Amino acid sequence: MLFKNINYCDENFEQKKGFIALKGKYIDYIGTTEPEEDYGEEINGENKFLIPGLVNPHCHVPMTLLRGYGEGLPLDRWLNERVYPFEDKLTDEDVYWGSLLGIGEMLAGGVTSFSDMYFFCDSICSAVEVSGIKSNVSRGLTVFDGSPFYGSYRHKESEHLVDRWNGACEGRIMAEASVHAEHTTNEKFVREVVEFAKDKNVGMHIHLSETAEEHKDCLSRRGCTPTEYFLETGLLDLRVTAAHGVHITKKDMSILAENGAGIVHCPSSNLKLGSGVAPVPAMIEKGINVAIGTDGASSNNNLNMIEEMHLTALIHNGIAMDASLLTAGQVIKMASRNGAAMQGRTDTGIIAKGMRADLAVIDMNKPHLQPVHDMLANTIYSAQASDICMTIVDGRVVYRDGRVLTFDLEQAAAMASKAAERIAGCL
Amino acid sequence: MLFKNINYCDENFEQKKGFIALKGKYIDYIGTTEPEEDYGEEINGENKFLIPGLVNPHCHVPMTLLRGYGEGLPLDRWLNERVYPFEDKLTDEDVYWGSLLGIGEMLAGGVTSFSDMYFFCDSICSAVEVSGIKSNVSRGLTVFDGSPFYGSYRHKESEHLVDRWNGACEGRIMAEASVHAEHTTNEKFVREVVEFAKDKNVGMHIHLSETAEEHKDCLSRRGCTPTEYFLETGLLDLRVTAAHGVHITKKDMSILAENGAGIVHCPSSNLKLGSGVAPVPAMIEKGINVAIGTDGASSNNNLNMIEEMHLTALIHNGIAMDASLLTAGQVIKMASRNGAAMQGRTDTGIIAKGMRADLAVIDMNKPHLQPVHDMLANTIYSAQASDICMTIVDGRVVYRDGRVLTFDLEQAAAMASKAAERIAGCL
Repeated sequence: MLFKNINYCDENFEQKKGFIALKGKYIDYIGTTEPEEDYGEEINGENKFLIPGLVNPHCHVPMTLLRGYGEGLPLDRWLNERVYPFEDKLTDEDVYWGSLLGIGEMLAGGVTSFSDMYFFCDSICSAVEVSGIKSNVSRGLTVFDGSPFYGSYRHKESEHLVDRWNGACEGRIMAEASVHAEHTTNEKFVREVVEFAKDKNVGMHIHLSETAEEHKDCLSRRGCTPTEYFLETGLLDLRVTAAHGVHITKKDMSILAENGAGIVHCPSSNLKLGSGVAPVPAMIEKGINVAIGTDGASSNNNLNMIEEMHLTALIHNGIAMDASLLTAGQVIKMASRNGAAMQGRTDTGIIAKGMRADLAVIDMNKPHLQPVHDMLANTIYSAQASDICMTIVDGRVVYRDGRVLTFDLEQAAAMASKAAERIAGCL
Repeated sequence: MLFKNINYCDENFEQKKGFIALKGKYIDYIGTTEPEEDYGEEINGENKFLIPGLVNPHCHVPMTLLRGYGEGLPLDRWLNERVYPFEDKLTDEDVYWGSLLGIGEMLAGGVTSFSDMYFFCDSICSAVEVSGIKSNVSRGLTVFDGSPFYGSYRHKESEHLVDRWNGACEGRIMAEASVHAEHTTNEKFVREVVEFAKDKNVGMHIHLSETAEEHKDCLSRRGCTPTEYFLETGLLDLRVTAAHGVHITKKDMSILAENGAGIVHCPSSNLKLGSGVAPVPAMIEKGINVAIGTDGASSNNNLNMIEEMHLTALIHNGIAMDASLLTAGQVIKMASRNGAAMQGRTDTGIIAKGMRADLAVIDMNKPHLQPVHDMLANTIYSAQASDICMTIVDGRVVYRDGRVLTFDLEQAAAMASKAAERIAGCL
């Protein structure tokens, strides 16, 4: 495939114009003149903007089934009265269809890879396999007593996930370990999961200091912050994806930066659940790799990375009262390259020769994107997810002009809606 | 037109299901059974949600030409180096096409009425006339010396606007007076514009305490807040639309509430320009009529009321760390009924028998809106402006399934882009 005279977001996250050709799974040519080689289909770049595929490194994709379920409740009532009873009724098949629906939404919104933490991981991986998207899948582990990890069903399920799926689909799927959070596990358990992850050579996906309460409780219970605790348990030796970090301290930031742990900023979810606003500019200043994620559709209530980029750009500039704080290019990088790095996928996330062809195309020929003074600004501040007209994963077009090409999204939506209705109906 | 078995947002801003019929400019029937009368075209309500037409009571619609122009600059440099030089080059024709493009974007996003403050008002009104939208148009007045209002070209233009356009297009257009802001006018001038508005019996559109700086400067210059100053000048005797109010005090809030002045909350613009976050929950508690607006596309960078509703719901719950603070229904009311009331249009903004048929239909049959547990929540938290599939003003379908029906939006976009390119090119 050859994009002719297309505006694109270059490796410095600045707007450039030129010819970009894909071969197999890779970007094979970038130049200001047309390549001599025949790259097959030619795409006229007029009024289009090519960006790196968006990476959503914190999701619970089966929770798409709970979109808009239990609105307006405080966090604890929402979880106890709505989420947990709903989740108790889930079957493998429900999770498959819910995942496929969520993945379809992501593909339609330019997302080429996501990291997930949930259960029923076979169903999630099957949906990833069918859809053509990339995913780092983890079995989120909680334990509310002193039980150990080794020998438990949690161990068995985590091991099965890694052995069965890590590296599957030509590397599109990567398996990870997951400690759900500091306050939802015990120390021995954490140390064992860390050992397991080291043995298996996989990354680690956690929730970190999402709410003020859990952060303070850890301080009074353990005399240290969740970040200090995870450092102590050896967890930060791993490649870590830490979601939220809303209430981390300056010292926590230094620890995370020194240990190369990434933070996934999830502005919609943090605002909607009333968790607060993560200190993103300070994190960046401390050298933390900060990416942007959606969290689950149950607390968002969508999987729209264009929206999360928009929120990230707006909130931090607004709260700091500084219109020049985060630039559009910087925010696009957070939502692509930084997320890919966090996933351990260093061969993608930027538009450069030799990188994986994980790409999204924005159609600027929309009334709300005209006139086009600045395509980076239009992407962050003016665009909607529905302006994505093409999504490409490993060189394969998986979404184009309103249609997911790899599976029947209408069927997935119908099956997911049926499952959601069945479960909600018996609660 | 008859909507059959459609979910709708009722007059209490709760989700109901039933039959809704339109006749002429009005909602003629609402019931749980099919009416006997023939209302013409029948619309199957399955997977659709009918909401009141959205009202955007603070806009500078010709500034659509500046979308994404001068990004990342602090407010003063952005105004002085980019906005003012660009505006100096505008012609009547540029403003007409820029307005039409912006109106097209609004119609496509479910907006049925907006209030505007700018110059070249004949061009704006001509675009409103052609498009079928409703608008309260004002000539925004600034004066940077001691000049009086009466006898000036500002007086002449304001008078022409009111005499030529107030009540035009069967009432779709209403003219208003406008004092741009406290810090951009002088006291004698303000008193004269207030007198003019009282004589002409029109409303008043102002900017109020948008930035911390202008609020503090007023305190030190006049010894009172901008709100207290406007009270003193008699301005608050009028029907007032006050944009922003980011830095108003508790006492200001009481004054505004007592005098029935409305505040337009513009979250995107306030965040993007680094102005701060308006104390909306406190304003509501004090009894102020708070609506939601976009401001101009130059500081937003779109005219997407779905996005502004989303931001309003998220930001205030997030900052107050209270997930139950603003409900979805309350936010939809702010973006419809409250805005209509501020415009002095008391016969619209809710779905009730006998009200104007100013309506928008959301297509819930989208992957990111399934499953449908809660249509109000889906509207606020999950939807995109592109999910609007029909917009109706005074009973007339002006937008449907991706097409504006009243004018050639593609032509408007092309002409506006050409104008924007010409101006940017010579700066």
